[in-house]
Amino acid sequence: MRYFIHFAYDGTAYCGWQVQPGVPTVQAVLDKALGQVLRQPVHTVGSGRTDTGVHASHQVAHFEAELPLGLTLELLRYRLNRALPPDVQVLRVHEVGSHDHARFSAEARTYEYFVSLRPDPFRRDQALYLDRAPDVAAMNEAASYLVGQYDFTAFSKVKGGENHYVCYLYEAGWHDDPRQPDGLVFRIRANRFVRGMVRLVVGTLLDVGRGKLTPAEFQQVLYRQQRIAASGAAPAKGLYLSRVEYAAGIVPNELGFVDPAHPA
Amino acid sequence: MRYFIHFAYDGTAYCGWQVQPGVPTVQAVLDKALGQVLRQPVHTVGSGRTDTGVHASHQVAHFEAELPLGLTLELLRYRLNRALPPDVQVLRVHEVGSHDHARFSAEARTYEYFVSLRPDPFRRDQALYLDRAPDVAAMNEAASYLVGQYDFTAFSKVKGGENHYVCYLYEAGWHDDPRQPDGLVFRIRANRFVRGMVRLVVGTLLDVGRGKLTPAEFQQVLYRQQRIAASGAAPAKGLYLSRVEYAAGIVPNELGFVDPAHPA
Repeated sequence: MRYFIHFAYDGTAYCGWQVQPGVPTVQAVLDKALGQVLRQPVHTVGSGRTDTGVHASHQVAHFEAELPLGLTLELLRYRLNRALPPDVQVLRVHEVGSHDHARFSAEARTYEYFVSLRPDPFRRDQALYLDRAPDVAAMNEAASYLVGQYDFTAFSKVKGGENHYVCYLYEAGWHDDPRQPDGLVFRIRANRFVRGMVRLVVGTLLDVGRGKLTPAEFQQVLYRQQRIAASGAAPAKGLYLSRVEYAAGIVPNELGFVDPAHPA
Repeated sequence: MRYFIHFAYDGTAYCGWQVQPGVPTVQAVLDKALGQVLRQPVHTVGSGRTDTGVHASHQVAHFEAELPLGLTLELLRYRLNRALPPDVQVLRVHEVGSHDHARFSAEARTYEYFVSLRPDPFRRDQALYLDRAPDVAAMNEAASYLVGQYDFTAFSKVKGGENHYVCYLYEAGWHDDPRQPDGLVFRIRANRFVRGMVRLVVGTLLDVGRGKLTPAEFQQVLYRQQRIAASGAAPAKGLYLSRVEYAAGIVPNELGFVDPAHPA
């Protein structure tokens, strides 16, 4: 049988999602825990990679396994969370069809970037602290130019690593963080992302927020398809993969499942 | 001159607030940062201790120092936060009268205890995870018996360490955590607390929430002034000192100061 596994992780201690020899990765600890609990080798396929230090409030992967008789999915979740380190925890496991694929069946992904406007000991690895409040209106004017179908070469980390750089953005904007006083969150939702895209978009938007770049100049960066040297990537610690959306029916809306990133 | 310093810390890496030789404490790093920035030996006096692993979203201390000419209090705060580790950060510094005392002038203290009802990788050291939702109504019935003036010998860690065990509780109750879906927070406000009191109260209330103890039995624990062996202290990681209140006038309500534990 094939299963989807939904999980969250604090990426601080990991060299990203994907298994790499000799370094700790989220996929490695998840595969190991699944192997221990199911007593068979398990290899997960993620919805996409996250880089070193990037978090996920909601990531999805699929795997194939034979569940031992009597092991319910709720019990599997419970045992996995006991087998996993506390910085990687499973939200839910459910059965899918044999062709449902965590990566290829995903129709949209959402990332959130968290900024704290006061030094917060409790979010020191989980949000970017800014000493001065940025100009949110200017950042949102600039962000609005990203919505639609564009070539994101200007906001790609490695030229040549992808087949193409065209992404369709459904949403890109800054909001007050409903959970944190003195907090901001940038939410960006697209059919796909190219490597390093969100951190480069955020880093350049923060330059708009600081007045180093006008919203019109930001738009020119996108149109010219040329990365500007001045603006760097925003630090990994503020970035969260927060939602992966699939075609209707793949992820059943069962009672008792609360998406922590998007509570009802 | 004498100053009050307001600050927050993640207590995970510290052996509590108070300086002890050979172990990391919050007071030690704060005194060191003050000494570095002010270029003179500084010794802070805290509003009270916190134990190993206990956090503070808002703690207060006083110190005496001569501020170098031209060093504003806002600049002092900025420099202190650069000198401090990211898990201890200053919220505010202000001048007080020469007899205002962080400990003896405090009229009330508030602690909060955070419980998470789902495994949350981002709060693994900052909240207690409970696998099953406790009976909040029963816990609140039990907690209501604490409000008023009582001898808290039953909820004291070390018999004999205090002059007396009488505390006046203004508030004790469980609430939905406004910042966390699937989160609970217990808030307790009193004129004073005896050692280990909040964690023992929370541990015993959680036994009421699990059905191990009735609210009436909880009340008997308080009245008999005898600790029950069965109920232990709740883990330190969920506990936060969240507010210290002083007589009117000691802490001026200056513009720009937001109490992170109690935003307006």
